[in-house]
Amino acid sequence: MSSVAPIPSCSPAELPVPMTPSPFSFSVATIRWSSRSPFQAANLFLRLLALVFSFSSALSLAAPSPAKTMIGKSPSFYDDTKLLYCFIVNILTFLYAAYQLFKGICDIAHRGVFISDMVSDYISFIFDQFAGYLLISSSSVSVPVIQQMDHRTSLWKAATVSVCMSFALFLVIATSALLSGYKICKRIIW
Amino acid sequence: MSSVAPIPSCSPAELPVPMTPSPFSFSVATIRWSSRSPFQAANLFLRLLALVFSFSSALSLAAPSPAKTMIGKSPSFYDDTKLLYCFIVNILTFLYAAYQLFKGICDIAHRGVFISDMVSDYISFIFDQFAGYLLISSSSVSVPVIQQMDHRTSLWKAATVSVCMSFALFLVIATSALLSGYKICKRIIW
Repeated sequence: MSSVAPIPSCSPAELPVPMTPSPFSFSVATIRWSSRSPFQAANLFLRLLALVFSFSSALSLAAPSPAKTMIGKSPSFYDDTKLLYCFIVNILTFLYAAYQLFKGICDIAHRGVFISDMVSDYISFIFDQFAGYLLISSSSVSVPVIQQMDHRTSLWKAATVSVCMSFALFLVIATSALLSGYKICKRIIW
Repeated sequence: MSSVAPIPSCSPAELPVPMTPSPFSFSVATIRWSSRSPFQAANLFLRLLALVFSFSSALSLAAPSPAKTMIGKSPSFYDDTKLLYCFIVNILTFLYAAYQLFKGICDIAHRGVFISDMVSDYISFIFDQFAGYLLISSSSVSVPVIQQMDHRTSLWKAATVSVCMSFALFLVIATSALLSGYKICKRIIW
């Protein structure tokens, strides 16, 4: 019985990993998630915050307006160009935050399918800068409007909530701008 | 005559450079200037531009006011909190630009005497960001004030010139912020 050939040492566990992407690539994504975790997690969290803040800011400005304009009593936000400016900037930031969140989730699920990393880094850097400056501009313009407004109208409450949200959104976007600036610098230097 | 000792090969031109700073150190500064030239020259030029723009913006707002308020006809910029905000931000930016220019010239003349490079980089980064956001905020707030103002007053002209200068100053400071962000990233990564 000693002439039996020994079991080959190359067990399935030691086989070289195939170069073609395997259908069981969830584990690879998990490994990448854990290795790139702190930066990517912070980025995703900031994008989620930006989405929530921009949505609630735009919603609080838009929500009380239609019902009141039907009655014809209370002024609407689109009668005032400054509040309209604030609303448009918030909507644009919401769309941008939604794109960034979608891109971040695509990155974790399967890398590089949606958009290349280099293009994405440049887009993030440029748009974060623009969004930050637009947000601080629109929020600043809205503050004097609120001060001059009648405090009993529902639009006053809506505009106050909206501007507070807008300032919080600005802080989030400014932090994102620092992160994306750091990423673009790393890309240029290395 | 062949027994005459040869002239020693160590001529004054080949003597080792003394480690203590020589009084003829202008050449060293020149060498450093040319090696660090593109970045430092761009930085100094931007600081000079910022100084000019902030000074002219603040001056154009302040210049026509005292003479007119003596007569008591034309409104002054410090009656309006938004124009006053714009004026204060411009003065602060002027002081900051003056400090940066002074620091840049000190750097070229004799390095590290005034303030250490690391502290200076962090100060530049933080204050450039703040100055950029404050400038876009104050300029945006001033635009509706100008729109509502009587176009025949001298304050209207002054405020228009001031806000235009302020926007130009914002562009300069935003570019400086990109440069100082790049410098701080290089310091963190290396």
